[in-house]
Amino acid sequence: MKQFISANDISSVNEWVEKAISIKKNPFEFNHLGKNKTLGLVFLNPSLRTRLSSQKAAQHLGMNVMVMNLNQDGWALELEDGAVMNGNTQEHIKEAAGVLSQYCDIIGLRTFASLNDKEKDYNEVVLKKFIQSASVPVISLESAAGHPLQAFADCITIAEHKKIKMPKVVLSWSPHVRALPQAVANSFVEWVSQTDAELIVTNPKGFNLDPSILKNTPVIHNQKEAFENADFVYAKNWSSFENYGQIRTQHQDWIINGEKMKLTNKAKFMHCLPVRRNVVVSDEVLDSSNSLVLAQAQNRIYSAQTVLYHILNQK
Amino acid sequence: MKQFISANDISSVNEWVEKAISIKKNPFEFNHLGKNKTLGLVFLNPSLRTRLSSQKAAQHLGMNVMVMNLNQDGWALELEDGAVMNGNTQEHIKEAAGVLSQYCDIIGLRTFASLNDKEKDYNEVVLKKFIQSASVPVISLESAAGHPLQAFADCITIAEHKKIKMPKVVLSWSPHVRALPQAVANSFVEWVSQTDAELIVTNPKGFNLDPSILKNTPVIHNQKEAFENADFVYAKNWSSFENYGQIRTQHQDWIINGEKMKLTNKAKFMHCLPVRRNVVVSDEVLDSSNSLVLAQAQNRIYSAQTVLYHILNQK
Amino acid sequence: MKQFISANDISSVNEWVEKAISIKKNPFEFNHLGKNKTLGLVFLNPSLRTRLSSQKAAQHLGMNVMVMNLNQDGWALELEDGAVMNGNTQEHIKEAAGVLSQYCDIIGLRTFASLNDKEKDYNEVVLKKFIQSASVPVISLESAAGHPLQAFADCITIAEHKKIKMPKVVLSWSPHVRALPQAVANSFVEWVSQTDAELIVTNPKGFNLDPSILKNTPVIHNQKEAFENADFVYAKNWSSFENYGQIRTQHQDWIINGEKMKLTNKAKFMHCLPVRRNVVVSDEVLDSSNSLVLAQAQNRIYSAQTVLYHILNQK
Repeated sequence: MKQFISANDISSVNEWVEKAISIKKNPFEFNHLGKNKTLGLVFLNPSLRTRLSSQKAAQHLGMNVMVMNLNQDGWALELEDGAVMNGNTQEHIKEAAGVLSQYCDIIGLRTFASLNDKEKDYNEVVLKKFIQSASVPVISLESAAGHPLQAFADCITIAEHKKIKMPKVVLSWSPHVRALPQAVANSFVEWVSQTDAELIVTNPKGFNLDPSILKNTPVIHNQKEAFENADFVYAKNWSSFENYGQIRTQHQDWIINGEKMKLTNKAKFMHCLPVRRNVVVSDEVLDSSNSLVLAQAQNRIYSAQTVLYHILNQK
Repeated sequence: MKQFISANDISSVNEWVEKAISIKKNPFEFNHLGKNKTLGLVFLNPSLRTRLSSQKAAQHLGMNVMVMNLNQDGWALELEDGAVMNGNTQEHIKEAAGVLSQYCDIIGLRTFASLNDKEKDYNEVVLKKFIQSASVPVISLESAAGHPLQAFADCITIAEHKKIKMPKVVLSWSPHVRALPQAVANSFVEWVSQTDAELIVTNPKGFNLDPSILKNTPVIHNQKEAFENADFVYAKNWSSFENYGQIRTQHQDWIINGEKMKLTNKAKFMHCLPVRRNVVVSDEVLDSSNSLVLAQAQNRIYSAQTVLYHILNQK
Repeated sequence: MKQFISANDISSVNEWVEKAISIKKNPFEFNHLGKNKTLGLVFLNPSLRTRLSSQKAAQHLGMNVMVMNLNQDGWALELEDGAVMNGNTQEHIKEAAGVLSQYCDIIGLRTFASLNDKEKDYNEVVLKKFIQSASVPVISLESAAGHPLQAFADCITIAEHKKIKMPKVVLSWSPHVRALPQAVANSFVEWVSQTDAELIVTNPKGFNLDPSILKNTPVIHNQKEAFENADFVYAKNWSSFENYGQIRTQHQDWIINGEKMKLTNKAKFMHCLPVRRNVVVSDEVLDSSNSLVLAQAQNRIYSAQTVLYHILNQK
């Protein structure tokens, strides 16, 4: 296992969810595996949950962790091959990845979407260039078009809280004030569609996700209709895939509130956080006992730990 | 013990000082207590001593530590209940505290005073909202109106250096160029007044501390009179409590210098650091053998460690 | 051993290189030495390799590490003795060094050249003031006029890759877009001239290094002539020593490229990184199998570890 950047890198989502739930019961069981091993966490963008949950996961496994805010504490990265670096960038991603591989046994990298170059973003140019120049396994800590550790944690959370074998899971677009990547939504669709769940996406027209990711997942443009009988409602904003990176401000009525949640089958509410209260979702929903947002955050430890476990265990 | 935010949270200042001095003699004695436990240090403001001494204290106890510059490396925090978060804030303190509690067994939080809203500052709104949403014990690493780890370290330092049972301890206002919180001064009065010491505060008119904190502590507006026979002189600037957050520049003669120290009983000089040399205190005093500022900084390890010890030990 | 700031602080470059190569073979052999010891890494300037390789070295030895971006996460430092600190600086270097010594057993400090005050830079005023006020051993993580950990790593790398007893090593000035310190070049000359190597420096007129560092090392202003029969080419830009801190833009033809490398004896290419591709050196050279830049970066672990080893072992 040389990389973890999507569900394609693992044998089976269901098996990995089971393994994660088992690891969670005894988190220090494998703390010999990481002895004298180092995890490097490299951030090109802000992070709270990922930063801390990945550290915690590594500590559970007995690993050392080094955290690096690369652009902030280190040097501005050049991404283009063949660039004449006479501008503001100070270090090429080739050297950065190569050097970090000298110091770390596994590297986690966070790099957000540009939102102005769809092709580059969806080809994961930054992440893939990094992997190409790295000589150790690389874990995505969220990339331009995916956030697999989040989706994995979400699958664990759904597995823990579902009451029926095939729950109805609704991924609902929700409003925001800034243009956000599609990464979380993409990975949620990719991962949940490989579990025992009836997955539906609801979003305004013009906000359909990448068809090659959606595949057979139904998309409904009527949010209230989508919510009917839902067992889980997952809220997330994303900017347009079609008109890449664009946002519209006229859909503020897509906020998730108590009234809409009443249409569901007493659905659990999910969000990856950070969340803008009373823009994406109302206080009453977020503060209700049906909210799973903290459970999701906790499971970020176990999704990361399961990935690290598999990488360490194969060596 | 769910929180450490003031002397009210502990059984007895004198007993805790004794315990700290005992821990200092054998700092690794209890390093089994923190095994597989994680301390999260969350900074909303700069920190040197607190950042390092708290890490060191946790390492003495065998804990893991995760450090987070929240506003800088993570997301800008919203503090208002019910806020419609369509502005610059990205994550509500409720989620931040809730999420951090998933990853940490104990959380330390640093948050400075606004100095423009006395009520909010003295009600410790930020710290208390954080504690309310946290599900693990929270330690103040300095809050709007108090700095208990500093005051505790100061009490340890006085206990170690006093030559008589009831030393005269003078807390002296001193000049500065910026408006500073009253936090250090408040906690110093609160803590030292519960030890064996004759505590006196001296400050210019208009700079009296909160009467509910001062209680029976005498306040003298003549600095030289206050210094007579002092065994310890503790220098600290604070902005006005009465005209909240205001500073005046006409009191530069309140600087602590060698001439004034001659009025004392060969007093030890104390300051919490960082200190502006030749503004707050002259070089000759700070560089003299009577200065205890490094001893105070060292005791920050043991005040933090004693607090962590009590929290870990009760579980 | 109270400090490591140049080759003058060690017994013999050759012996230390041998020791480093031996430590590299069994990096965890001495991991009892650092038990319950703390390394503090203090950065006044950016760092990637130094930051991570020093952490890794300390972990190999069983030490705890605390990393501090002093000006960023802490307080702005005052460097002048006797300063009246009524401006922007918040903490004097005397206190910073004194306090850090309370928390750390060894301190590493990075502080770059001003490039506008040659005397101050070459007297290492910042580093020496820090050392003067520190009560524990201090390691230079690059200072105004030297970068000994890099030079030490470079000597290890040359020792590992040389094919003859006395290889010809050429330090070549190369172009850049910003004014850079002479630190790396200075230390390279200082260290390599104490090993078994025929060292030559080549640079444009006006860019000769400090004569007191160069000593007998030949300087050739014709780059191609210098490259003839070279076994190692070490590229590095530095600003002028004579016209202190100045750069000129007319020497872009000093770039190291494949054509020039053909003049050599199939020389290995070296650079300390970060490197500006196609300004300092062409892609073809950097990406060739003769490039040792990653090997150099890896040896930063072992140069740091050997220094830490000697400090810990003497106690």
